[in-house]
Amino acid sequence: MELSQAINERRSVRFYRKDPVADDLVVKMIEAARMAPSWANSQVSRFIAVRDPEIRKLVQAAVPTSNPAYNALGEAPLVLVAAGRRGKSGHYKGTPVNKNGDYAMFDAALAVENAILKARELGLGTVLVGVFNVEQVKEALKLPAEIDPFILTPLGYPETFDLNVPPRKEVSELLHWDRFTEKK
Amino acid sequence: MELSQAINERRSVRFYRKDPVADDLVVKMIEAARMAPSWANSQVSRFIAVRDPEIRKLVQAAVPTSNPAYNALGEAPLVLVAAGRRGKSGHYKGTPVNKNGDYAMFDAALAVENAILKARELGLGTVLVGVFNVEQVKEALKLPAEIDPFILTPLGYPETFDLNVPPRKEVSELLHWDRFTEKK
Repeated sequence: MELSQAINERRSVRFYRKDPVADDLVVKMIEAARMAPSWANSQVSRFIAVRDPEIRKLVQAAVPTSNPAYNALGEAPLVLVAAGRRGKSGHYKGTPVNKNGDYAMFDAALAVENAILKARELGLGTVLVGVFNVEQVKEALKLPAEIDPFILTPLGYPETFDLNVPPRKEVSELLHWDRFTEKK
Repeated sequence: MELSQAINERRSVRFYRKDPVADDLVVKMIEAARMAPSWANSQVSRFIAVRDPEIRKLVQAAVPTSNPAYNALGEAPLVLVAAGRRGKSGHYKGTPVNKNGDYAMFDAALAVENAILKARELGLGTVLVGVFNVEQVKEALKLPAEIDPFILTPLGYPETFDLNVPPRKEVSELLHWDRFTEKK
């Protein structure tokens, strides 16, 4: 698939078919994720693909039922969790190098974007969910103390696929030349 | 360009030609960035494309001379800065919804990955630089208090383009099934 199509026709998918997702498609997504850059090539991002129904229930239970993707986390055959090791990315000898602190979330998102673009190419749907109880997800996935989950997505074949785009700000509002010029 | 080529052949470029980059190529990059998802479509990411030589010097001066991309920030015709407004993404009514806190850096990175993939398609080089003094960059770009710069990249046509890939961890180390299983 053309890069521009993957970027422009990726959508947040909240309704999934029950059909299983072959393991090798998940592997292809992570092969894409691993090509993203990371802080000094520190590669602190990790992915957990949850197929086990009991563990998926525990992950879903960490999300409020009011979340628009809550049902999808139960319907899709897989839940993919992106996580990262704290204290390395954005650090030099254990100390953050700038006041933004840890770059583990930044690095994870670079990798996640590659993964969800690849999912689009593979015909799979995703929707990024950040509203969850971190400790509950850590416990469900047996993540060690220093690795935090940053984002979840159901993963499966879309039941419906709506090409309407949620409204986006104009480029003129997002891109400033030479210095920031508030437009209010 | 095929998605897989953009993902697999993006490289960190540290040597640039002086040739100018047409404004509309930067616009195309930000058009790609704006299609990335963001927390509840909050769209807090902003980009500043610095062409002005004096402002570029101020940005470069915020980076240690020891950084392997330091010279590139002076040589490339443009420096692109990705920033984000704090206190909205990852928040509900002003309060972070989980213990990861602000998702502004996460959202910025989703957008940045789209932008650097598009740059690759356009024949432009990038290299993400996170080692810089945040306050110096904010001052140089006149960013308001609530908007922090997260990453810089020189932007221009590569002088050299090395297809060797810095070593990457195996997928089996990055991807875990059902639960995290430490491999040490």
